[in-house]
This record gives sequence, structure tokens and C-alpha cells, in this order.
Amino acid sequence: MATIEELARRMKTDAAAMAASSVEIRNKALIEIREGLQANAADIFEENKKDLAAADEAGIAEAVVKRLKFDENKLRDVCEGLDMLRELPDPLGRVTLNRELDEGLRLERITCPIGVIGVIFEARPDALVQIASLCIKSGNCALLKGGKETTNTNRILFRLIHESAVRAGLPEGCLAQAETHDEIDELLACDRYVDLIIPRGSNAFVRHIMDNTKIPVMGHADGICHIFVDEDCDREQAIRIIVDAKIQYTAACNAVETLLIHKNIAKDFLPKLAEALAEEHVKIRGTKEVISMIGESGSGEKETITEEDFDTEYLALTVGVRLVEDVEEAIRHINTHGSHHTDSILTNNDKNAERFMQMVDSAGVYHNCSTRFSDGFRYGFGAEVGISTGKIHARGPVGLDGLTTYKYKLYGHGQIVGDYANGVKSFHHKDL
Amino acid sequence: MATIEELARRMKTDAAAMAASSVEIRNKALIEIREGLQANAADIFEENKKDLAAADEAGIAEAVVKRLKFDENKLRDVCEGLDMLRELPDPLGRVTLNRELDEGLRLERITCPIGVIGVIFEARPDALVQIASLCIKSGNCALLKGGKETTNTNRILFRLIHESAVRAGLPEGCLAQAETHDEIDELLACDRYVDLIIPRGSNAFVRHIMDNTKIPVMGHADGICHIFVDEDCDREQAIRIIVDAKIQYTAACNAVETLLIHKNIAKDFLPKLAEALAEEHVKIRGTKEVISMIGESGSGEKETITEEDFDTEYLALTVGVRLVEDVEEAIRHINTHGSHHTDSILTNNDKNAERFMQMVDSAGVYHNCSTRFSDGFRYGFGAEVGISTGKIHARGPVGLDGLTTYKYKLYGHGQIVGDYANGVKSFHHKDL
Repeated sequence: MATIEELARRMKTDAAAMAASSVEIRNKALIEIREGLQANAADIFEENKKDLAAADEAGIAEAVVKRLKFDENKLRDVCEGLDMLRELPDPLGRVTLNRELDEGLRLERITCPIGVIGVIFEARPDALVQIASLCIKSGNCALLKGGKETTNTNRILFRLIHESAVRAGLPEGCLAQAETHDEIDELLACDRYVDLIIPRGSNAFVRHIMDNTKIPVMGHADGICHIFVDEDCDREQAIRIIVDAKIQYTAACNAVETLLIHKNIAKDFLPKLAEALAEEHVKIRGTKEVISMIGESGSGEKETITEEDFDTEYLALTVGVRLVEDVEEAIRHINTHGSHHTDSILTNNDKNAERFMQMVDSAGVYHNCSTRFSDGFRYGFGAEVGISTGKIHARGPVGLDGLTTYKYKLYGHGQIVGDYANGVKSFHHKDL
Repeated sequence: MATIEELARRMKTDAAAMAASSVEIRNKALIEIREGLQANAADIFEENKKDLAAADEAGIAEAVVKRLKFDENKLRDVCEGLDMLRELPDPLGRVTLNRELDEGLRLERITCPIGVIGVIFEARPDALVQIASLCIKSGNCALLKGGKETTNTNRILFRLIHESAVRAGLPEGCLAQAETHDEIDELLACDRYVDLIIPRGSNAFVRHIMDNTKIPVMGHADGICHIFVDEDCDREQAIRIIVDAKIQYTAACNAVETLLIHKNIAKDFLPKLAEALAEEHVKIRGTKEVISMIGESGSGEKETITEEDFDTEYLALTVGVRLVEDVEEAIRHINTHGSHHTDSILTNNDKNAERFMQMVDSAGVYHNCSTRFSDGFRYGFGAEVGISTGKIHARGPVGLDGLTTYKYKLYGHGQIVGDYANGVKSFHHKDL
């Protein structure tokens, strides 16, 4: 069997052919993949059952097992996703600059794929299909490593997807799969061949990846999202939004972790909030003021917060609460303690909303809605390969656009720089 | 005096105010900077003379001393650059996506600055002015470290620029300067505060930076540029372009290092090329075939090339030469040995040109012109902070666009994700 380095080297070679592939072939691959998955549904479910049985035996929590499952519903969802992706416009070959530098010397900036991308993701078979298809549509070669709890499902899905892609006319090296944990370290060492690593998973895992490779890494370690409840706001709406942002999917990176409450409304608002949170079994970790203002309301679980808690992603039914003087203090708190993911202001004051959205240094800045909206599907990107909290390249949910880069093409007729340096010729820089 | 970490922390705080600054204030700063430099020209030249005297004493080569010089001509050039930059449109606040996700739920993607950028650059006082002004126009805070050979000139230029920027209304932390070499390592450790490092300088220096920081690095280590001379081409033009690409500025990263010659024209073309190169004192390092085909032509210096030479950036009057079968072999050679900087094909065959420009995986792919054109000023970007050979974020010459990122703003009216998950509401994703 080929080592990861050998696979990556081959992919680097095939990346040029993949970049040159027509959108017709890439779309044809998406159709072939859908048909391949549908035609082999029974076999896929069979393999998935093996993974589920192993998970059961290992005593894996039910919530996690739910994610491992790949049934008729999940198959339907990924097939719909494949169709949606096919309908999106080609992200490649878009001319984003067309400029005549001088007569007969034309500069074009044109979008193209990044090249070879390594994606390491959690045990979710539907993620494998989504990631592979996003990489195909964007003309990238993808080296995939999924969670070990779905090894059997991943293996058959990968085989079917790869066969379909090659049948459609894409190069052999368009996709490859890594199956063992050791291979992750091999992948991280392939900086000569791999252009980008996208890790998904726990905070500690993503940090490990970031600290152990020279390859650029796109993704997020923490997701410490905030909601600031301003003085003048719709308080019932605020409670509904906070509850959604905390409990709709508690383990998601865009779930809220810290609430900042304007001091002038705290006395009235906090007891109502505490009741609503208690009903949903959310524990409040508040400052002393907050705890005392809540008193016995809701009689939910309450405890005092420490300074470090503000830098913690709970990913659990716990929420931090503190009071702030005004929008300025809320902005300072978020820019100091946040992870630049998604933060929301709830206010009827448009000036405060604009100030917040301008000054908060996060990928997503929201007004009067739940932080949970930050997601590639919800943004209309078809799907996402991950969410980036970095500021270089792509930010927020990363779909097709984030998987492309560009190159400059210069069309000349024998021009040399010497003529411009000596003043024989000069640039006129006309955008066409 | 403040440590680099203290400076960077303050800049991080001021970055939000910098991002919120109006283009009027940023443009006013550019005017104030020009006026400040012009009003203090005599003092600047005085300080520059100290640097030149020290360089003379240290026996620094004349070619290098030329770069250290800051006189009337250089001042005029940087002032013109400041005016040109002021006239460019605001790179911030551009809406690149405006989409209604559902009624009353509008998503906007808007350009914004990266934040705090550390730039380490060579001893060239004009570079300090260009880099500082690009960062100001793009709303970034910049921590600058210039070459030590221009310490005195840098100090006065920095002081004047910083005073002017603050006078125009920008925050105190918009600019800072590091002066000693030790401070580079301090800067590299500031991953909590610095969003991007742009190193300029030798290959070894850039690699050192890349290997010693967790901060994203944008730039290039090598500049191994190629010219492929195809079978059907204008041979006189080819020689003119090759000579320009090699000698117009030999030490530049976009100078050509390797020539790939189509085998069918080699016998006739190589002796003429050798003559032209010999006239310019360029040494040919060729394969055995190449050397034997050249014979005694031009009687310039010639030697046999090794495989490693193809991975070497000479930055000298030396050029590697080999024969290739066709455009495909040229593409393979470049993608294997190149540094993804700038590569040019000289041909009358448009099909081969398109194939080359499609398949060569470089920031710049050129047809019938010199590789020396890859430069922010020549591309019409006003100036450049550097040239990137990475594929993440910005590629090629980096001007204002490469110094920006974006954020997503979501404007709602109380929307929660639960309603969409439960099918109460659904997204309609309408681009506005």
C-alpha cells in the first residue's frame, strides 16, 4: 500500500490536471457520485451497521452514535446536497481583474483551485460526502481522514465516490483516503505536496494540528461566542434567542458561551432569563452581582464565575453571565475573551448595533438573531468544509470560494521591463 | 521603553479603532505624511548621511549602498507613491455578498482590515514609507522592522510618519517600530496580538521566520523563475526577453534562473542565445547537450549543470539551461523545481500558451514577456508589501487587497435556528 507521502506526491502531480478539468466533468462527477451512492445504498447501510455495532459494544454515548449513523435519511440529505452543489456556478476561471498595463500587455487575475487539501474530520459519514464533493466542485485534490468510529462506512463511501469521480473523467489522484491515526502525522509532514490542512474536531485536536505542521491550517480551535443584551431591546425576543443559541445544538462551535447584559436592565431581565434557562436545564455561571440579582428565580443551578471561565468553551448546558456598562465594554470583553467566531448584539438601537458590528473583530457579527446561524448551509454555500476563525484567506463558514485562490496571467508581445525602467515606455493601467 | 509584546498588545486594542476609521481620515494621514516628509527633508537627508557613512566605513558593497540612500529623488518617488495610493479607492467596507437568507434575515459580507501586521524588511528607507502607507490606507496597524543599515534614516522617517498619522486622527497604536534584531524573535512570539507577518529578505531569513512562529506568514523564500522557449516563437524577441529577465535587476526575486529550450530549435537558437548572454557577462550552466550545442559561440563562461542547480536561486549573473521535449515536459519541470513565483512561455502557438498558463502552478504565468513584470507597482497596485508564493490568502504581488479580509454581518429580527431545524421556517437564499 502507498504511504501518505507517496499518495500526496501523486496528488500534487494530478492537481494540475484537476485544475484544468472542465466544470462539465466536475459536475458529471457529482452526478456519478450520487448515482453510485444510491445504487449501492444497501451495501453502505450494511457497512454502517458494523460501525454502529462496534460503537454500541464500546459503549459510545447515544448522542455520538446518532452522528455515526448513515441511513436512508442521511443518504437523501447528501444526495440533495450533491444536486445543490452541482447547480452552484463554477468557482474556477472567474476573471477578477482585467487590466491593460500598457498597449499589448494585458493582466488577468483568474480564480483557480488551491491544489492538494488535507481534511481531517470527525466520525460523520455525511461529512465525508460533503467534503469530497466540495473539493471536487472547486477542482481541488483532497486527502481525507475521517473519524475512526466510522471506518467501515468511510471505506465504502470513499471507494464509491472515488470510482465515480474517476469514471467521470477526473484524475486518479483527485481523492485519497487515510485510515489510521498514525497517518495524520505523516500527512502533517507533507508540506512539499499539501497546500492546506483543514482540521475539524476538538479544541485540543485542532491546536495539536496547528502546532505540528508547516502546512497552512484553516479552521478554528475555540468557539467562544457571545450575546450582548443591550439596554433598549425586545426582552422576550432576547430570551428566545439566548435559549436557541445555547440549547439548539449545545455541542456546536457557534453555540453561545457568554452572555453580556447591560447593567441598566439586569435587575428586571436576569430573573426572567434565569427562569427560562432553568426550564432548559442550563446552569448559570455568573458574577457575584448576577447571582445576587437572580436570587431564587427559576431555582436553576447557579455558581460564581471565575476570570478564566470567560476564556472557556463549555460545549455544555452551562452559560457564563456578566454585566457591562455599555456597548463599548461589551466590545472590549468580546475582543479580549472571544475567539473571533460569532457574536451577536440584541438591541433596538441601530447606532449601537452598527458600532458593535464594526468594532467586534469576529468572522460573524450579528444583530437580533441567534449565533447558531453561522454555518455554510444556512449562508447558502451548499455546504461547508469548516468554519475559520483565522483572518488569513477565508473567514467564517468556508464553502467553494474559500477553496479557491487565484493566479495572474500576463499576455504580452515581447515586452521587457528595461524599456519601462529607462522611460522608453510607460504603464497606463487601464481596467478593461 | 515598551517591549514588543506591550506594543503589539496596545496595537491589538487600537486595531478596532483603526478598522473603524473613515477613508477620509486615512487619506488625510497620507497627505500629512507627505507634507511631514517634505517639510523635514533636510533632517532626513542628514540622518541618511550618517547611515551612508557607517556603510562606507563597514565596506558595504556599492550596489547595496545605492539602496540605503534616501535623497531628493527617493523622496520625490515616495511622495508620488503616497499621492497615487491616496487616489486608489477605499479597500474597506466593500460589500462582496448581500443575500437575504429568509425574510428579514439579511447576510452581508464586507471587506475589513486584517488587524495587526508585522513587516520585516530590508535596509531600504523607501520601503518603510511604502509599507507604512499601504497599511494605513488598508486600515491595518503595522509593526515595522527595517534593516539595521538604515537605522538612523528609519528612525526619523518612522517618527515623522507616526506623528503625521496621529495628527490626522488615527489611533496612537496605528504604527510601531522595532529597532533591534532581538525584537524580531519577540515579535514572532506575539501570536496573541499579531495577525500576520510579512518577511522580506533572503531565502534563509524568510525560512527562519516561517519556521519560528505560529503567526501566519505571507511572502516568499525562493524565487526560481523559468522561461520556456517553445518551438514556434520569435527567436530574436526571445533573446531580448531572456536578457531582460536575467540582467535588468539580477538580485530581484522575479529574475529568471532557468531556461527551458524546445529541443527542435536548440541547435540553431542556443549559439545565438549564448552570444547574447556572453555580451552581458552571464554564465551559462547547462546540461551536457546544451554545452556541446553552444560550442564556442560567444565564448562566454559555461559549465555543466547538476540536478540540484535546478532548485537553486542564483540571484547572480548565472542562468541554468536545459532542453525539453515539449510544453508538457516544460510544465512538469517547472511544477517540480519551481517556487510558484513567475514563469513565462515564449511562443506563437496560442494553444501551447494557454496550456502552459493553465497547468503551471505559479502566482504569475506569462506569455511572451519578461518575468520581471511581477511587481505591485507594475500591476497598478500603487505599491506592494511583498510577493507571495503561497496559495493561501494572497498570491503574487500583494497590495491593498491582500491586506484586507472580510467579516459576515447578519441582520435579523429575532430569528432563531430552532424554527428552521423544525421546519417552521425555511431559507430562501435570495441574492440582493
